[in-house]
Amino acid sequence: MRTHTCNELHHSDIGKTVTLIGWVNSNRDHGGVAFIDLRDRDGVTQCVFRPETNAKIAEVAKTLRHEDVIQITGEVELRPEIDGKSTVNTEIATGSIEVSVSELNIINRSEVLPFQLDKEINNEDMRLKYRFLDLRRPGMARNMKLRHRITKTTRDVLDEDGFLEIETPILSKSTPEGARDFLVPSRLHPGSFYALPQAPQQYKQLLMCGGIEKYFQIARCFRDEDLRADRQPEFTQIDIEASFVNQDDVMTLVEKLLGRIFKESIGADAPVKFDRLTHEEAMNTYGSDKPDRRFDMHLTALDEVFANSEFKVFSGALKAGGCIKAINAKGFAGASVGQIDKLTKAAIEAGAKGLAYIQARGAEPSEWRSPITKFLSEGELAALKDTMNIEEGDLVLFGAGDWETVCEVLGRVRLMCADMQNLLEGNTELNFLWVTDFPLLAYDNEEGRWHAVHHPFTRPVKEDEEKLKNGEYADLRAQAYDVVLNGYELGGGSIRIHEADLQDAMFTALGVTEEEKKTMFGHILDAFSFGAPPHGGLALGLDRIAMLVCGTDSIREVIAFPKNNRGADLMSASPAEVDFKQLRELYIQSTAKKDKPKPQPQPAPQA
Amino acid sequence: MRTHTCNELHHSDIGKTVTLIGWVNSNRDHGGVAFIDLRDRDGVTQCVFRPETNAKIAEVAKTLRHEDVIQITGEVELRPEIDGKSTVNTEIATGSIEVSVSELNIINRSEVLPFQLDKEINNEDMRLKYRFLDLRRPGMARNMKLRHRITKTTRDVLDEDGFLEIETPILSKSTPEGARDFLVPSRLHPGSFYALPQAPQQYKQLLMCGGIEKYFQIARCFRDEDLRADRQPEFTQIDIEASFVNQDDVMTLVEKLLGRIFKESIGADAPVKFDRLTHEEAMNTYGSDKPDRRFDMHLTALDEVFANSEFKVFSGALKAGGCIKAINAKGFAGASVGQIDKLTKAAIEAGAKGLAYIQARGAEPSEWRSPITKFLSEGELAALKDTMNIEEGDLVLFGAGDWETVCEVLGRVRLMCADMQNLLEGNTELNFLWVTDFPLLAYDNEEGRWHAVHHPFTRPVKEDEEKLKNGEYADLRAQAYDVVLNGYELGGGSIRIHEADLQDAMFTALGVTEEEKKTMFGHILDAFSFGAPPHGGLALGLDRIAMLVCGTDSIREVIAFPKNNRGADLMSASPAEVDFKQLRELYIQSTAKKDKPKPQPQPAPQA
Repeated sequence: MRTHTCNELHHSDIGKTVTLIGWVNSNRDHGGVAFIDLRDRDGVTQCVFRPETNAKIAEVAKTLRHEDVIQITGEVELRPEIDGKSTVNTEIATGSIEVSVSELNIINRSEVLPFQLDKEINNEDMRLKYRFLDLRRPGMARNMKLRHRITKTTRDVLDEDGFLEIETPILSKSTPEGARDFLVPSRLHPGSFYALPQAPQQYKQLLMCGGIEKYFQIARCFRDEDLRADRQPEFTQIDIEASFVNQDDVMTLVEKLLGRIFKESIGADAPVKFDRLTHEEAMNTYGSDKPDRRFDMHLTALDEVFANSEFKVFSGALKAGGCIKAINAKGFAGASVGQIDKLTKAAIEAGAKGLAYIQARGAEPSEWRSPITKFLSEGELAALKDTMNIEEGDLVLFGAGDWETVCEVLGRVRLMCADMQNLLEGNTELNFLWVTDFPLLAYDNEEGRWHAVHHPFTRPVKEDEEKLKNGEYADLRAQAYDVVLNGYELGGGSIRIHEADLQDAMFTALGVTEEEKKTMFGHILDAFSFGAPPHGGLALGLDRIAMLVCGTDSIREVIAFPKNNRGADLMSASPAEVDFKQLRELYIQSTAKKDKPKPQPQPAPQA
Repeated sequence: MRTHTCNELHHSDIGKTVTLIGWVNSNRDHGGVAFIDLRDRDGVTQCVFRPETNAKIAEVAKTLRHEDVIQITGEVELRPEIDGKSTVNTEIATGSIEVSVSELNIINRSEVLPFQLDKEINNEDMRLKYRFLDLRRPGMARNMKLRHRITKTTRDVLDEDGFLEIETPILSKSTPEGARDFLVPSRLHPGSFYALPQAPQQYKQLLMCGGIEKYFQIARCFRDEDLRADRQPEFTQIDIEASFVNQDDVMTLVEKLLGRIFKESIGADAPVKFDRLTHEEAMNTYGSDKPDRRFDMHLTALDEVFANSEFKVFSGALKAGGCIKAINAKGFAGASVGQIDKLTKAAIEAGAKGLAYIQARGAEPSEWRSPITKFLSEGELAALKDTMNIEEGDLVLFGAGDWETVCEVLGRVRLMCADMQNLLEGNTELNFLWVTDFPLLAYDNEEGRWHAVHHPFTRPVKEDEEKLKNGEYADLRAQAYDVVLNGYELGGGSIRIHEADLQDAMFTALGVTEEEKKTMFGHILDAFSFGAPPHGGLALGLDRIAMLVCGTDSIREVIAFPKNNRGADLMSASPAEVDFKQLRELYIQSTAKKDKPKPQPQPAPQA
């Protein structure tokens, strides 16, 4: 249907007769001559309809509207000078030529579009309802190409290293741990249900037991959670598992993989080796287990400075076994009352009782403006100035209380300050980081039981194995690791348990009953008793990676047909009601109240 | 954990100290020396535990059992001569060397396996329950590697041609056409359901409307159908769609793709261009729309021979507008009574009233044994002998009735004869074929309405477009095509409708109401009204392709974790009952009768 794409014709094609097909991108009339920019996936070519070439189609061309699909045949010509001025457009690949059209075939007329393709649209619902048009916009088209390049590169790299891509079931089994499952009623097994997998975790470990040694899959996963702005009920992960590996082996592989992904998609250079921080270091220094290290503003421990303080907030925190920390937002002393209020609100949301601060209007403590300095001794103020390196213009923000809360509060405040100060404007750094040595178990005070920080298959460090078996659950460390980019967690993984007795001890730690061990995890415990190899792996969030590669701030921009934040597809109006007959065949019935107005997917009003 | 894999060490490594890790494949004692074949994914290496090297581990080695996981360190040595005879094993890559072990690390002991890995197992349930062991068997391991190679090659080829792999939703919308959907209740939309996609058909067409131009996806699809031996509730297809293409463009692409798949997986050469038959030719000549052309045994029309026959079965068929055909199974006159019975039974199952035949014990009609020759005139017999080229030893089988039934009956009988005659024994041919020009619509006498032979988005041939719009539905031909290999349908596709008015006419033909057009297909009709490009594509069954590449006869052999023919996963015992609480959150309840014994997945008894 075409001899060339719309991004292909150059100077060297002048004189050739060509056929192009695509969409009318624009249609301008200059003195009775129609100039149509014809667009396809690859680019745009200017097509000129001169009455002297073909009077009839020159007339028809004037009636063509945006997004009509046309096929044209004509001769490639140099763009002429008009009034001694070149009409060459150096901004597009085909800018030096135009096609003088002699034949026109109108393939499919378009109605007037609900929105313009070359303008920003704020109404996302509208974009989602008309996704089939939204995808024609240059940004979305580019994102789809980049996402393809990411997955292709992933497969190239892992194939080169001998990894086999293996599909695991989507019709899977409900597991008690983790998030809420999506369920699928079974027609052949009345009263029974499949579950959609939250991750192929068990299957990939069973593949290791099956001697596959190197597995990967770009796998669809499902979580029926209440959706936040950057979550989708179905998402995709690059899932990797290998036998006979340690933590360093997995990290080296992932460094290579991510490096190639960023290089081959956008030509960016990632470091060959990523920095590493333990979970404790990351929390202590950045107040986050996924720190953004493109700026410093470190958390600084002030326990010694205020060891004997009479300020009750500080002394109380220390007496209760807690800690005192602060950050110095250099040059942000001029923060407005509104900004300080915002920071305080964030601190309180993160668990603080308030947010103590010092605005250093001068270098000396006497020049500081603060609600707390009056409670501090001269010695403490001097030591504080020294420890925090307080200079004129600085804003110092404090946290006091239990270690975890203090870290999280200041971690959040740190990011907000950087945002308010525009510290990252124009920053193009790729700051990769490994966070290691996560805790194995955490005690849930509400439920009164231990839960797995990563998941129940994560291996403790060697020296903690016996403790786990002996029922000593506090302060165990895991062979678990997360990879972080610019403050986003790209993924995480662990070395796994491969022995039936250690896995059994882990289940016991998590309060799994003997009965549940059999019914829910029998096949895993079985598999570990027939010579399971040592193994480990990791999963990377593909949507998140694509978002960062594409430079957008929403995963919906890198998914062809995303759902909205109510889990609805506005284009096809899904989910939807189904025939009673369909449900009867599946041995289920709906308990939704028919008379109550239901929150159905609400498509945007048609323009 | 290792310096080499178990398939890597050669003559040239002699003298090196190496570390290997893997499974104990065998353990033989020769005069106090343990010979252990250590196995990993890639191969086997012989490890020798000599008391004089390390007395302690030589003792321990004797206790090692099949499938224990061990790590060894030792020196690579030439396999010695014993009694002047070489012990070199030329059948394995590492057969010239052995490793004299000085260090042994037992990583994970194995219980006694429920079955042996190197023996054929007839109990498939047992294999499925212990799939994590079954995958260690060489056949399964090879199949997983080949399947990976097929998908990797597919992605390489399509990427080279500018196709973008784009993921489409799994949480999708129920469609009224096609097979039964799997449904997923929605917690956020009480009373509403997602459906798992039977294919990404609508999404890929919407991507074309979105200007993607070249799309593919190796896509998981779902059909809740009663399962036959070669069906799975979830399966995978290579899904392809392109804009601005015609039928030849799609065929050329697929020929290249399948050629590369067979070349790069098993080194087999497929023809550059595949033969083509119209649907009518295929039915007329082979009695099948997916003919196996590795042998002839063509269906031959006998309407002229018996135009004036007094044999009522033949004359009746012709009078009713039907036809008479026969096949000649050369050299099969010696078919046993049992075999003739089987063929007759198959013919009746396919819709025939019986199966007339001639066993040519000699070349002359007088020597023929047949229940029908007595009703035929001498002229008819002579013409028959001539037309069918009947020679001594032939078996001729007849069909008479309506065209479609006769074709299908003889098509089935033809395949059975070939099987009984072992015509394909040792045949390694790859006989590819395109079947084209399928009918667009077929009338369903039971339901009293027309249905789409391919699907509702398939385009009629140019000259039939107006007929469709005018409500003339009989004998319309589709721009649809199937690709066939050795009698298996590998996939099929079509050029699609891209105009809203033609699509609307198609829905009308299928009895879709105006209301349903809006609620079920509104987004598609909408999309076609905003400049949809001409487009078409095809889907290939990956499981089927993998099965043929691997040379097995069941798709379960090429799926890591298949379900059994009751849709159950015997390994994880899925589907399973779930908490009442989980169902309540989803606004559904089970209507399965609790007191009745339910057909739950039945795992095989443990060995």
